[in-house]
Amino acid sequence: MSKINVAIIGGTGYTGVELIRLLSRHPYVTISHLTSRSEKGRAVSEIFPSLLGACDVVYSDMTDSLMDEIGKACDVVFFATPHGVAMSHTPRLIAQGVKVIDLGADFRLRDLGEFGKWYGLEHTCLDVLAEAVYGLPEIHREKIKSAKVIANPGCYPTTAILGLKPVIDTQNSADKPLILPNIIIDAKSGVSGAGRNAKMNLLFSELSDNFSAYGVAGHRHTPEISQGVHAFLGSKFTQKVRFVPHLVPMIRGMFSTIHLTLTDDGKALNWQEIFEKTYQNEPFVDVLAKGVLPDTRSVRASNRLKIAVHQDDDALTVLVVQDNLVKGASGQAVQNMNILCGFDEMCGLGVEFGGCAVVP
Amino acid sequence: MSKINVAIIGGTGYTGVELIRLLSRHPYVTISHLTSRSEKGRAVSEIFPSLLGACDVVYSDMTDSLMDEIGKACDVVFFATPHGVAMSHTPRLIAQGVKVIDLGADFRLRDLGEFGKWYGLEHTCLDVLAEAVYGLPEIHREKIKSAKVIANPGCYPTTAILGLKPVIDTQNSADKPLILPNIIIDAKSGVSGAGRNAKMNLLFSELSDNFSAYGVAGHRHTPEISQGVHAFLGSKFTQKVRFVPHLVPMIRGMFSTIHLTLTDDGKALNWQEIFEKTYQNEPFVDVLAKGVLPDTRSVRASNRLKIAVHQDDDALTVLVVQDNLVKGASGQAVQNMNILCGFDEMCGLGVEFGGCAVVP
Amino acid sequence: MSKINVAIIGGTGYTGVELIRLLSRHPYVTISHLTSRSEKGRAVSEIFPSLLGACDVVYSDMTDSLMDEIGKACDVVFFATPHGVAMSHTPRLIAQGVKVIDLGADFRLRDLGEFGKWYGLEHTCLDVLAEAVYGLPEIHREKIKSAKVIANPGCYPTTAILGLKPVIDTQNSADKPLILPNIIIDAKSGVSGAGRNAKMNLLFSELSDNFSAYGVAGHRHTPEISQGVHAFLGSKFTQKVRFVPHLVPMIRGMFSTIHLTLTDDGKALNWQEIFEKTYQNEPFVDVLAKGVLPDTRSVRASNRLKIAVHQDDDALTVLVVQDNLVKGASGQAVQNMNILCGFDEMCGLGVEFGGCAVVP
Amino acid sequence: MSKINVAIIGGTGYTGVELIRLLSRHPYVTISHLTSRSEKGRAVSEIFPSLLGACDVVYSDMTDSLMDEIGKACDVVFFATPHGVAMSHTPRLIAQGVKVIDLGADFRLRDLGEFGKWYGLEHTCLDVLAEAVYGLPEIHREKIKSAKVIANPGCYPTTAILGLKPVIDTQNSADKPLILPNIIIDAKSGVSGAGRNAKMNLLFSELSDNFSAYGVAGHRHTPEISQGVHAFLGSKFTQKVRFVPHLVPMIRGMFSTIHLTLTDDGKALNWQEIFEKTYQNEPFVDVLAKGVLPDTRSVRASNRLKIAVHQDDDALTVLVVQDNLVKGASGQAVQNMNILCGFDEMCGLGVEFGGCAVVP
Repeated sequence: MSKINVAIIGGTGYTGVELIRLLSRHPYVTISHLTSRSEKGRAVSEIFPSLLGACDVVYSDMTDSLMDEIGKACDVVFFATPHGVAMSHTPRLIAQGVKVIDLGADFRLRDLGEFGKWYGLEHTCLDVLAEAVYGLPEIHREKIKSAKVIANPGCYPTTAILGLKPVIDTQNSADKPLILPNIIIDAKSGVSGAGRNAKMNLLFSELSDNFSAYGVAGHRHTPEISQGVHAFLGSKFTQKVRFVPHLVPMIRGMFSTIHLTLTDDGKALNWQEIFEKTYQNEPFVDVLAKGVLPDTRSVRASNRLKIAVHQDDDALTVLVVQDNLVKGASGQAVQNMNILCGFDEMCGLGVEFGGCAVVP
Repeated sequence: MSKINVAIIGGTGYTGVELIRLLSRHPYVTISHLTSRSEKGRAVSEIFPSLLGACDVVYSDMTDSLMDEIGKACDVVFFATPHGVAMSHTPRLIAQGVKVIDLGADFRLRDLGEFGKWYGLEHTCLDVLAEAVYGLPEIHREKIKSAKVIANPGCYPTTAILGLKPVIDTQNSADKPLILPNIIIDAKSGVSGAGRNAKMNLLFSELSDNFSAYGVAGHRHTPEISQGVHAFLGSKFTQKVRFVPHLVPMIRGMFSTIHLTLTDDGKALNWQEIFEKTYQNEPFVDVLAKGVLPDTRSVRASNRLKIAVHQDDDALTVLVVQDNLVKGASGQAVQNMNILCGFDEMCGLGVEFGGCAVVP
Repeated sequence: MSKINVAIIGGTGYTGVELIRLLSRHPYVTISHLTSRSEKGRAVSEIFPSLLGACDVVYSDMTDSLMDEIGKACDVVFFATPHGVAMSHTPRLIAQGVKVIDLGADFRLRDLGEFGKWYGLEHTCLDVLAEAVYGLPEIHREKIKSAKVIANPGCYPTTAILGLKPVIDTQNSADKPLILPNIIIDAKSGVSGAGRNAKMNLLFSELSDNFSAYGVAGHRHTPEISQGVHAFLGSKFTQKVRFVPHLVPMIRGMFSTIHLTLTDDGKALNWQEIFEKTYQNEPFVDVLAKGVLPDTRSVRASNRLKIAVHQDDDALTVLVVQDNLVKGASGQAVQNMNILCGFDEMCGLGVEFGGCAVVP
Repeated sequence: MSKINVAIIGGTGYTGVELIRLLSRHPYVTISHLTSRSEKGRAVSEIFPSLLGACDVVYSDMTDSLMDEIGKACDVVFFATPHGVAMSHTPRLIAQGVKVIDLGADFRLRDLGEFGKWYGLEHTCLDVLAEAVYGLPEIHREKIKSAKVIANPGCYPTTAILGLKPVIDTQNSADKPLILPNIIIDAKSGVSGAGRNAKMNLLFSELSDNFSAYGVAGHRHTPEISQGVHAFLGSKFTQKVRFVPHLVPMIRGMFSTIHLTLTDDGKALNWQEIFEKTYQNEPFVDVLAKGVLPDTRSVRASNRLKIAVHQDDDALTVLVVQDNLVKGASGQAVQNMNILCGFDEMCGLGVEFGGCAVVP
């Protein structure tokens, strides 16, 4: 198979660097362009020495002429940029026949009110938004194949939507309610999820040996989870989603504990079996054996997401782990690219290529 | 005020050492005896050099004759021992007029079936159990004053019971249900909560940069929380308690996120105000201002417990933090001793004596 | 004893906050003024919730009129500010009879060339510099008593100078060389030593699970160590000092390993005894028993500095630990204030006032 | 190329699991046997879930009959066992034509006195010891090709010997001394270097936020470093080696700071150039550009060792980093196997296969 050319716009943040790590060993990909305002003119491995020998591309500034060149030279462009950047370049790129995968939020939310509320931006390309595909392969694999623009999901929504999918699918084909309100998602994330920004509250001396909650009054991932649960999975499903995120003193890893209360009809089902069946053919989702509990270390630097389900009378607890930078961001973006380009879905992500990483 | 003599049985575990730290600077206490099987004959500061200058007592083996001597010499005896030890020594000690504060679980649970199920022991002194007081000052202050034996609460139950008290008190005086089933306690603890035991799963290389759940299928603190909520606070309160603990890669600190769903009657109340009123006179419980979120660092090495309450339509989220070794164990034991002995409740625990440095 | 009023200029950095923690429980001190540009108008405990109940002073902006007010109201002013700030305010303050303790570097170096080279500033008050006392109590206690301005030592120099003092004192009274060139100081510091600055290289995700060297080509503490060793301790001592600092993934703590090579005359001495004698009356310096090795945890949040000395044939290894924020900065500043004001030198720093919990 | 069969004796320690991780993705290797006393009968991925999909071998007990079977079935056997185990099985294995790579110390030291002193064992197969090759490819590549038994080097010695090789090689061909006594190696290791043993002093709560020295009075790696420096590199080189190890609160990574003092002849040389030349053709040793300093993160999970050299008048500082579990143990063992079996030396270790990892 011949190689494709890809560009990464925003190549110095944690998701951008993780993309470089994964794509630099992908057998069918050449990274032809990397952009960075702050590091233009410097080679990747100079700034991230662990990538020495893996990638020697030099960062360019994201000018108009560079974007022109990228439009001509590349098959796929990844945006690992602050919100708003992808939106302003995507129309031209897709006009040139380039596929776009946005790791930011520009094409995630269908509801423009929610988008404006959480991201403080007016959307500038509604037609592109209309045809963008929410890139969660486990629910949208077919649509991804023919997408022009893929909205790569947020990290928390990936765990929440995949943790709830077996429940909602089952509810969809049941005629009585299986769970009582509400759905509670108590999520915990490693610090890299907050990005590579020089902020006081992200300093080592502020976060080490400390555990905190944040965004309790509202988090931009709540409407995205809600959209996944209600619009994508169960349009008649009316349970509200409550989401409380926390910060864990570790670099990588995300752990979502989903608490559900079952009705009598719900209690009668074998949820372990239901979860196992739902994901039996998914290459990157593991349902753990009954009684086995996950930890974040077991998926460090891997694209796997692991789910344990525990049923106790009317209580159903779903525990989901992933690496926030891989299945929660850059690994999922590569998975989307594989589907889009007709490569094996595991290509560059399977254990045969290492499955793992060092950065950060 | 003249000084009292105290003994600590089991002085090398994390709660035992924390007791030494706190009591060695208490103005009305002399630590006269410390026991340890493994370290007998060695001075405290030899093993815990940070205590150099604070305490120079030599560890003794816990023999019968030593217990005799302690019974004669001491006013208060603390047990910071594995479950079962306190039970076998307490009857004789109280017969000698000594007050006993057990940091273990021997006198916590009233239900013998639950005790046997979770601790694998038959209870050997039911009469003592019958008169033991569950030492949570914020609910049992009066009883503690005249107790002979105090069952010092578990760390998780302290956060759960104090986090729920304002809700259950309010429910007790309401004639309609305020919350829907169930009560969900999603708790996170630092590693010292697992004790100072040479176990593979507690190694630095196993826990660092890792987050996990444990005890999902059942934890010994669940019946203790349930007893606090139902027997102590609201005997007519029928909501079940669901408790899921997690392990955080940090030494000290506990964070409990309590998720409640309000009925329409419950939604009509001002919970911020209710929580503030409940705890307005409590020296060690702070209700944070609306919108402020707690972190574990802010109570590191302190006996304070901080609560934030967030209300959003039918969702009520209560966030509770404490230092698991202080308010969750040894600090609360000192608080109980202060009440028992007629000292100022904050004595040896207030900021005027150190309260201890937390920042950074 | 009546209380003194103190001001802390720069009260939001790590050393400033540590000063607040220590001084707020000092029995003879009232913190009357705190300055901060970024946090003016907010109370300390709002920003540092662990100080709730310990200090409720509101931060003020450091205006001219405030400095006037401070000059009238305060007995002692601490500068915990970037280099250059103390220098511009000190002349007026001492003219008003206020004592100044600068935790920065403005008055540390006698050699103006070195000062300019490392701090990039021209010195603006040479007369003050000339009478400033380098505030290392173990070598300058008498001078500190009558000082007007105290240059509080840097963290690394404190460990290096105190670790070398017994050697140089001994050399001073010997007629033959005791050690061969050179003196090697291999030092390791927790991250708080780098300050509370929003810099990319200080982020949790950059430093956690990582160990690095820095400043190998030159560090501003090298001339300060050299001045301590040569100008203060042994003016005829010609051995060069080599200093290599490293960064450890922990918040607090400093560990300096000093490697010396002994001559035959040096080999003949009993260095354990020499170190013990040198420090036998020092309240804050412990020489560990032969064979005992220090760790940083044993001095966490304490003003103690611990030294182990190991002699093996011609190799003499001196291991020094301290808390970089306490004996390495703010604790030493309080110790200096105690000496200056005629308080007990341990006042507010001894275990009787907290000393603070270290275990675990 | 056809695949070889390998066995790993002792497959649950950190070096054993790291071998599984590396070998399971090696294109020419089949892991046919794994032994573990404690985990016999369980599959690897059950205990180490990050290896799910990479290796599903079931652990066997190390019985005589199993060793027989291994002797017949395997081409290479790795011992990742406590000292003494390899010694008792190797003679029979090599008699069966199997190559042995011992990650323990049984065949490292030539000096039986030193071996007995440090490992407390009498050597039981001196003839095997006599022909064993010390498996540091950068100094013994030719000998490794035809070895029957390879003594895989210790982690500290790997950094020390490779950090000193350019200096000693240069000294060997000089007629005057280039460095003054002594050679000082100040080394720092992540905690996994202490092994996966349930010991109190390795607990998370004992090591987190703590830095310590150990083995100052003597460490078993000192004679191994000395042997490498004197016997292997420079038989006429008489400088003594001083070695002081420290423990860093991180899982993986090793950082050795080597302090040398140059003579006038030594000062006249360009050491940056000498180091670059020495290692210009080595696939796993990088000499960093002048002024660039290494950190352990840049080699996490990689088989690369990075060296920086800094020269300042008579001071020569050599800074060496590696992952203690990869180049310091299991990666080097795979490198040795590649040389031994005629595979490309980078096979299974290069960035094209991931270069990186997750365990632990």
